[in-house]
Amino acid sequence: MNHRFVALSGGVGGAKLALGLAKTLPAERLTIIANTGDDFVHMGLHIAPDLDTLMYTLAAVSNTETGWGRGAESWNFMSATAELGGETWFNLGDKDLATHIQRTRRLKNGETLSEVTSALSRALGIAHSIAPMSNDPVRTIVTTADGDLAFQHYFVRERCTPVITGVRFEGADRARPAPGFVKALDDPALSAVIICPSNPLLSIDPILALPGIRQTLTDLAAPVIAVSPIVKDMAIKGPAAKMMAELGMEASVVAVARHYRGLVDGLVIDRQDENSRAAVERLSMEVLVTNTIMETLDDRIELAKICLAFSGRIGTA
Amino acid sequence: MNHRFVALSGGVGGAKLALGLAKTLPAERLTIIANTGDDFVHMGLHIAPDLDTLMYTLAAVSNTETGWGRGAESWNFMSATAELGGETWFNLGDKDLATHIQRTRRLKNGETLSEVTSALSRALGIAHSIAPMSNDPVRTIVTTADGDLAFQHYFVRERCTPVITGVRFEGADRARPAPGFVKALDDPALSAVIICPSNPLLSIDPILALPGIRQTLTDLAAPVIAVSPIVKDMAIKGPAAKMMAELGMEASVVAVARHYRGLVDGLVIDRQDENSRAAVERLSMEVLVTNTIMETLDDRIELAKICLAFSGRIGTA
Repeated sequence: MNHRFVALSGGVGGAKLALGLAKTLPAERLTIIANTGDDFVHMGLHIAPDLDTLMYTLAAVSNTETGWGRGAESWNFMSATAELGGETWFNLGDKDLATHIQRTRRLKNGETLSEVTSALSRALGIAHSIAPMSNDPVRTIVTTADGDLAFQHYFVRERCTPVITGVRFEGADRARPAPGFVKALDDPALSAVIICPSNPLLSIDPILALPGIRQTLTDLAAPVIAVSPIVKDMAIKGPAAKMMAELGMEASVVAVARHYRGLVDGLVIDRQDENSRAAVERLSMEVLVTNTIMETLDDRIELAKICLAFSGRIGTA
Repeated sequence: MNHRFVALSGGVGGAKLALGLAKTLPAERLTIIANTGDDFVHMGLHIAPDLDTLMYTLAAVSNTETGWGRGAESWNFMSATAELGGETWFNLGDKDLATHIQRTRRLKNGETLSEVTSALSRALGIAHSIAPMSNDPVRTIVTTADGDLAFQHYFVRERCTPVITGVRFEGADRARPAPGFVKALDDPALSAVIICPSNPLLSIDPILALPGIRQTLTDLAAPVIAVSPIVKDMAIKGPAAKMMAELGMEASVVAVARHYRGLVDGLVIDRQDENSRAAVERLSMEVLVTNTIMETLDDRIELAKICLAFSGRIGTA
């Protein structure tokens, strides 16, 4: 049987598991769906941070220290931009810029974001399928005491400092899920949907906010499993813990489980959260306890294999 | 008396004299008008090669070897663009790119090309005034045996190989001269217009093709002088000689003089063309013979001073 899998992912943390899955599954058996709520237009360029992180990670050209952007990068565009009085709060490396310029050019020529992503992925030698969650614009807006902030303004320019009072996904109610996403979920060979360890509120919720997606995932014959991005009350990466606290959620695997309740059939939690197992199980989820901190490539592959096996067990249960 | 001067310039060759003039005259006494017929949109960016060359030259950040682009440049954007299957025939350095992106962004925000050029010049620390010939689009089209070619396609992509049968300046008939250009020509203190040693057919003719400009220059009380870009039947830089030959013009200072006849009151020619003096004088022009080949900064300043003195002599004659 030709088991197929769909991974839902944000940027850095999610991309680690996506890479592990890509190293484990042949290309035709994996579709990676990227959050595009973080996309924005900056200096006239269409920037898609999570798509870029996924592409660079799978193409092995990513900056392994930062987790975002390209490795062996130079910053002469930024220094010249500073000299010209341009905005410098969002770092654009010289190589990275080629991606944004090609994407912007292709979108202006009428290609969809899915088509552009396929073309760029192909050019970077990526065999696996990376697709945006939607070809239509969805923009994550963070509500703060000081007013609304576009996601990158909150995340990068303001370094997540403002206290969050809410998050909304502008355009999500009329954005159609991308054809590649719909097709992958409709595939009779679909064996599981894996929610990568990405920020539930910022990276996964925009995907779930697309019309029909939450229902489709709930109705799916195949199991949906998630890997908790929270370990020991801390986000492994990014502002998830701070945001969850500000939005009145406990930053814990139990809160993650509660967030995904009714949608997720199984949650993968870290060994350090072993004592939360019973609490998560009470939310009608299978629990798998393992090492979820992916430092090496082997860690990524190992966690991917564990997720695939876990979903297989749930699927046949 | 506060003598003021206007210089008309294309790229590399013209920018050398423009720099000499800027080193000789205080900022308020010089306006440099750039050809924009070579401008084009590439990868969604508004590129203005002659404005850039003038700005970089006056800001002392130009690549002194090539004469175009920025010095101490890196090319990582281009290599990443090649990797992504993008067009690579037009070289865009990483620092240079900041100029194109800022210009494109500002134009989209509704600023005129003159306003953008002022802002970029200021940011680069340029005291002198550089203005585009027009804020409206003019596009130089080269007619060849193989069909029409946009200028940069002819010049850079095809390396001037196709045989030219004609040149036209699309949009020139309805392009208004830029406000700074009109103001400088209207200034009662205007002492001379200096046509820099740029390609007459490609860099100066687009400026002269703007409505009213040729007539204004002809009617001007102040003299118009030009420096021949042709020395000893060769263009010092660029395809002028080849183009002139293909268009049935002799590539010589006499042909340059014939081209500018009725417009130019004085022509500066090189010592190597001393024997053409009489032929040029027969075209009702004053002739000044000097060294016109500008290798060093001192050469540029020296030629600038000679031009200013020459125009002074003609003006008071």
